[in-house]
Amino acid sequence: MSSQPSSPQHLIRLSDLSPAQLDDLLELSLRMKRKGARAPQSGKTAGLLFFRGSLRTRASFEAAMTQLGGSTINLSAAADFWELESQVGSIMDGKPPEHVKDAAAVMSSYVNVLAIRPKPAGNSWAVDRKDTEIHTWASYAKVPVINMESALWHPLQALADLMTLREALGELRGKELAIVWTNSPTPATPAVVNSLLHAALSRGMRVRVAHPAGFELDAGVLDEAATLAKEHGASVSCGMSLAEGVRGAQVVYARSWMSLEDYANPTLAATRRSRQTGWMVDERTLALGAEARLMHAMPVRRNLEVSDAVLDGPRSLVYQQAENRLHSQKALLVQLLRG
Amino acid sequence: MSSQPSSPQHLIRLSDLSPAQLDDLLELSLRMKRKGARAPQSGKTAGLLFFRGSLRTRASFEAAMTQLGGSTINLSAAADFWELESQVGSIMDGKPPEHVKDAAAVMSSYVNVLAIRPKPAGNSWAVDRKDTEIHTWASYAKVPVINMESALWHPLQALADLMTLREALGELRGKELAIVWTNSPTPATPAVVNSLLHAALSRGMRVRVAHPAGFELDAGVLDEAATLAKEHGASVSCGMSLAEGVRGAQVVYARSWMSLEDYANPTLAATRRSRQTGWMVDERTLALGAEARLMHAMPVRRNLEVSDAVLDGPRSLVYQQAENRLHSQKALLVQLLRG
Amino acid sequence: MSSQPSSPQHLIRLSDLSPAQLDDLLELSLRMKRKGARAPQSGKTAGLLFFRGSLRTRASFEAAMTQLGGSTINLSAAADFWELESQVGSIMDGKPPEHVKDAAAVMSSYVNVLAIRPKPAGNSWAVDRKDTEIHTWASYAKVPVINMESALWHPLQALADLMTLREALGELRGKELAIVWTNSPTPATPAVVNSLLHAALSRGMRVRVAHPAGFELDAGVLDEAATLAKEHGASVSCGMSLAEGVRGAQVVYARSWMSLEDYANPTLAATRRSRQTGWMVDERTLALGAEARLMHAMPVRRNLEVSDAVLDGPRSLVYQQAENRLHSQKALLVQLLRG
Repeated sequence: MSSQPSSPQHLIRLSDLSPAQLDDLLELSLRMKRKGARAPQSGKTAGLLFFRGSLRTRASFEAAMTQLGGSTINLSAAADFWELESQVGSIMDGKPPEHVKDAAAVMSSYVNVLAIRPKPAGNSWAVDRKDTEIHTWASYAKVPVINMESALWHPLQALADLMTLREALGELRGKELAIVWTNSPTPATPAVVNSLLHAALSRGMRVRVAHPAGFELDAGVLDEAATLAKEHGASVSCGMSLAEGVRGAQVVYARSWMSLEDYANPTLAATRRSRQTGWMVDERTLALGAEARLMHAMPVRRNLEVSDAVLDGPRSLVYQQAENRLHSQKALLVQLLRG
Repeated sequence: MSSQPSSPQHLIRLSDLSPAQLDDLLELSLRMKRKGARAPQSGKTAGLLFFRGSLRTRASFEAAMTQLGGSTINLSAAADFWELESQVGSIMDGKPPEHVKDAAAVMSSYVNVLAIRPKPAGNSWAVDRKDTEIHTWASYAKVPVINMESALWHPLQALADLMTLREALGELRGKELAIVWTNSPTPATPAVVNSLLHAALSRGMRVRVAHPAGFELDAGVLDEAATLAKEHGASVSCGMSLAEGVRGAQVVYARSWMSLEDYANPTLAATRRSRQTGWMVDERTLALGAEARLMHAMPVRRNLEVSDAVLDGPRSLVYQQAENRLHSQKALLVQLLRG
Repeated sequence: MSSQPSSPQHLIRLSDLSPAQLDDLLELSLRMKRKGARAPQSGKTAGLLFFRGSLRTRASFEAAMTQLGGSTINLSAAADFWELESQVGSIMDGKPPEHVKDAAAVMSSYVNVLAIRPKPAGNSWAVDRKDTEIHTWASYAKVPVINMESALWHPLQALADLMTLREALGELRGKELAIVWTNSPTPATPAVVNSLLHAALSRGMRVRVAHPAGFELDAGVLDEAATLAKEHGASVSCGMSLAEGVRGAQVVYARSWMSLEDYANPTLAATRRSRQTGWMVDERTLALGAEARLMHAMPVRRNLEVSDAVLDGPRSLVYQQAENRLHSQKALLVQLLRG
């Protein structure tokens, strides 16, 4: 949360919310789900800017805002407008005709909240992990900026994940969560896993992150994770096999993420990925857990990441988890636009 | 209509509506047109998924929903998200990162109704005629699925067509309808004609379908047409010349459709099409009818399919027909979302 | 304004508004800005058609309509539908499957107002300056058509510009406005400048248009400008250097526009443009004015058209000007939809 009283509250990562705010938010999410909502967002407008495609995030965010009585403006960089410059001080004689600082200031005068899905450049993890684009938006916007998944964080998914974990497990302290790497030809950045890991640790969960060698999470994220674990009596360990990860877990969270070592080299990345076998969650794997439930942020590649039998079986929480995107985003919008 | 009481009512083809429902719908459409509507769709959301482009369908559907007080979420596969897998049980290591069954289940938790325009693959009529994609959506959706034109059916157009025929002719039983093939370099599938043919026969009309050799309608659709004709005291005949088709007709419905014989072979199709001459509706043609009115589902290629003089003349119903898309879709939404 | 009482009022260029209407509009714009608005556009729909991309125009127009209680339908030619034919009487066997006259008539039955951003073909200024496409839309539409920037005019920008000039300068009569050409690799047509020039002259301002040789404005626009200057006791002169233009000006309006001489020849145009140096507004330039304020319609290329120091300094009106798009468009919508 910003220290300047007049600056808007952004949500770039989950820790932008105070513990009390996060508690409120989860309570409100559950209430929204039980009772629906007819909150006073009438006349309010959310601007949605997509520099990458989206199905779930876009549909759930639009539904949340319009079902609260507000409206949304959708802009897709590819179809609707243009590239934006984010370097400060540059001489703008290249391709982008407009600077993020100008777009942010102008859009702030039209809408009440800005939700942004930036597109990492993909040339260097050291550069992309800084999330410069979304931070630049937040610096210059005069309304709250919500991160709809940057290279490093996906706080909206983490809100829905926390809500789902709470519905499934009740009190989270001491419960066991296995985050397991799965194989996909189109892996995402570890943003979902980073946000989930920190969220789970801040609630006192015992987390294991199973993945093959070469798929280690970002060192900065892991350092913060260790600190969070110590603060909250939680624990985190990484790099074990799928079976070791799942053993004894109450929830198995499957997710494919790219190797940060090969981040800018798709050919090497494809080779490394193709060498990994056996990283699919099926009924045999899930049976290693403690009546484990399955979570996945979707999109999910069936029978490659998770088997049909698990996804369509009684242990799957994936649709509940996706539905919770709607409720938790309603709660977030109510909280952010209350001011 | 589905036999399971708890499953939603879909509209993949017109016969998904019972005769009583269709009667209600037509009455409601006419009432909507006369009196406008301020129906209680406030807080309700329609999800629109376009796998192919659209002007009329998209604009009229959005206008219908928002003028009823609801809101719409538009997703275009090309710009906004990605390809979806529709084969059940496949190992998803190809291009589509998500399965229709998952997209359908998730979208069902965000919206109250899903309207979908699939894109036929175009490799085989025997395959595309199954309309697998829209049926898969309907199987897994928990909200009503509306077909916004598949390979085989276009029920929304047929609703507006029936409404327009009724406005123009009053009682339809025994009236003569000529459906005539017209020449266009970008013909559609026969979906519009299929839905119209069945709709007209189920209202007891006498229908002639004029077309050149090689442009025969789908055999399965024609078999059903023969059955419908018998049930409803209607009649259907096909394959005559333009002049024979129009002679004595009260309504001439012009439409270009592709040859199903050359369905997967654009080169052959272009050659076959270019050999057809004289398949344009002009004033001389129209004069063969019985004070015949012209209908066309649009987009219409002027002076190639229908002459300017006819389209802009007093016999043309094309704008009334297009406007009726709005009213009949409002009525449909009211009917489907009433439950 | 049309002479036929039953035809809708369009806004293709600012002079489509009577002086009294323009006065009302400016008053209403300022009132909207002070007090917000909850005007009765509920149940009304605006159709937005983009044949070229847009950020500010689209976002501000959508925000205006939805904050007034109405809704918008956005259609982007690239993503959502198709090319349209605008020649009357043509045999439509080419690429466009639909005629503007049909699209205009049909869309008129779905929405209450149509806002259109056409895409000039770019092959000939003599052809594009006719703005055939938007005039064809206006001819056949049965609802008001609003020009969201054609080759020749950008009346929505001019409304916001007038509002901003009035806020900054009070009474405009006799005040000095410098419109100065700036260098950009992606210059626009002179539409913004044309509309601004006529607007400023019709309010009695003394206008200088500074630009390099070869960047003369359209001769027809300049002829009308001379007439307007005479009628309103204003003055206009063109073609001086940047310094001569700015000297003594109260407002400096920076804008890059393309050379009409090289209009259809991008290679020649790039060469001509690259020869221009020193056409950037920085603090030293601005100091030549009379405590001059800076305006720019955006997008602005920083440190190429205008320096960071000026854009981010106390003399800049650019964000106020962009915000005024929202308020003046609300006022326009209220005025056009009142009928």
